[in-house]
Amino acid sequence: MRIARVERDGQVFYAAVEGTLLRRLEGCIFDEVRLTDETYRLDEARLLSPVQPSKVVAVGINYADHMEEMKHQKPEDPVIFIKPASCVVGPDEPIVRPPQSARVDYEAELGVVIGRHCQRIGADEAMDYVLGFTCVNDVTARDIQQKDGQWTRAKGFYTFAPIGPWIETAFDYTQADVESRLNGKVCQHSNTRLLMNPIPKLISFISQVMTLEAGDVIATGTPAGIGPMVAGDVVEIEVEGIGILRNPVIDWE
Amino acid sequence: MRIARVERDGQVFYAAVEGTLLRRLEGCIFDEVRLTDETYRLDEARLLSPVQPSKVVAVGINYADHMEEMKHQKPEDPVIFIKPASCVVGPDEPIVRPPQSARVDYEAELGVVIGRHCQRIGADEAMDYVLGFTCVNDVTARDIQQKDGQWTRAKGFYTFAPIGPWIETAFDYTQADVESRLNGKVCQHSNTRLLMNPIPKLISFISQVMTLEAGDVIATGTPAGIGPMVAGDVVEIEVEGIGILRNPVIDWE
Repeated sequence: MRIARVERDGQVFYAAVEGTLLRRLEGCIFDEVRLTDETYRLDEARLLSPVQPSKVVAVGINYADHMEEMKHQKPEDPVIFIKPASCVVGPDEPIVRPPQSARVDYEAELGVVIGRHCQRIGADEAMDYVLGFTCVNDVTARDIQQKDGQWTRAKGFYTFAPIGPWIETAFDYTQADVESRLNGKVCQHSNTRLLMNPIPKLISFISQVMTLEAGDVIATGTPAGIGPMVAGDVVEIEVEGIGILRNPVIDWE
Repeated sequence: MRIARVERDGQVFYAAVEGTLLRRLEGCIFDEVRLTDETYRLDEARLLSPVQPSKVVAVGINYADHMEEMKHQKPEDPVIFIKPASCVVGPDEPIVRPPQSARVDYEAELGVVIGRHCQRIGADEAMDYVLGFTCVNDVTARDIQQKDGQWTRAKGFYTFAPIGPWIETAFDYTQADVESRLNGKVCQHSNTRLLMNPIPKLISFISQVMTLEAGDVIATGTPAGIGPMVAGDVVEIEVEGIGILRNPVIDWE
C-alpha cells in the first residue's frame, strides 16, 4: 500500500494512493488502518511529509562511489548522525538555503520508516519493525560540513530533510534505483544493491545505540554525484517503485 | 526555585526542593506552577531526570583546556551534536557501559533547560527562553568517538545523558564551578566563566539551525580532566549553586 499524509480544506489525514486517486484511511498507520469510501483526486489535496519523526537517523558513508568523491576512508562501522525533527518538510515545500552557508547540496537517499518502538534488535528481526519506505533528500551545507568536522549542524538546518511523497509498504529494498535530478537533469543515479551496509544491518546497528520510535526515518546514505542547489532550482529525488519527491529551493530572507 | 521531577508510590510529579523537603507543585513547569501544602522528605521520593527532552544538543569544544587535551583545533563556530532522548537517565540511575566500547568517559557539564519553543532568536533575547539550569554528564565512548570521527554514536548510547538532580531557576550561569568526581576523587574542576562561547550566544547559535523545544537541554561543554569509568564506579557531576548529579556505572549484561 502507498500511504500518504495529506491536507485538504484544513483537515490533515492519511490516505491510500491508488493511481491518481486518494482513498481516505481510518485508524493508525502504525497499528491498523481501514480503507474508507471517501476518495479524492491527488490534485485535490496537498501531500505532507508522510511521517513526523522524532528524529531522522542518517548514515554517512554507505555507497563506495560517494565515499570516493568525499575522499573518505572506508569506515569500520556505519557512520551515523541525527537530523532533528525541525529539518522535516514534505513534497513541494521549499528547501531554504540558510544565510550561514554558501553551498547547499542535495543528497538522494532511500528512507526507511520505522513502524514500532525498538531497542537492541537483531538484523534477522529488523524488518518486522519497518512500516515501509520513502524518499529522503539529506540536504547538506557542504561548506559548514567541512568547517565543523562534525556533520550535525551542516545537515541539521531547518527544511534540510524533505521526506515523501508517501510511504510504500510493498517494496523490494534490495534492488531499487535511487536518483536525483536538478531542474530535470540527472545528477545521481545508483541502486540500493550497492549499499555497503544493507538495511536490516543498519536498523539493528542503530537500535544497539538508541531507541527507534514509530515514525522515525533512517536515511540510508547517498551515492556519488552530489552537487549544489541555488534559489530557483527544483530538485527531485526518485526511488524506483516508490515515487518522486520534488522540492523547490529558495534563499532565506 | 529548585524544581525536581519525582516518583513516589508509583506517582510521578513535580516538586519544589526546599532544603531537605519536597513541596508538591501544581501546574506546568513551562507555564505556571503553584506551591501546594503537600510535602515529603527528599528521601521519601525518588528523583527522576527533571525533564524529558526531545533531544539534548551538546557543544563539543567549549573550554580551552579540554580543547588542548583533545588536541582539537579552535573551531571558528561552536561545534554541536545531538544526543537522542533515549540517552537520558536521572540521578542514581546506572550508566550502562555498552559492549561495543572498551572506554566510557564522564564529562561534567552545565546544562541549560529550555523553557519554551524557539527558532532563530538573538543572543540578547536568548535567556527569556530558559527555564533554568541543571547538571549533565555527557558520557562518551572515547574509543568509538575516535573510530567513527562523527560523535553521534559515541555520545548517543542508552543512558549516556544523566541529567539532574533538579532544575535551578535562580542561578548565575556566568561564574559557577563545574566539577566531576569519580569515587569521591576530583577529576575535572573548572568554572563557567571560562566557557569559550557564552550561554546566550550558544542558545542563539543553535536556534539559527534547529528548533529548541520546552524541556530540551543544551549541554554546554566539558573542561579538561576527562577519564574512563568502569563497572562499580560512582560518578558525581557538581555545578556550584545547583547540586550533585550522582550515578553508578555498570556493564551491559
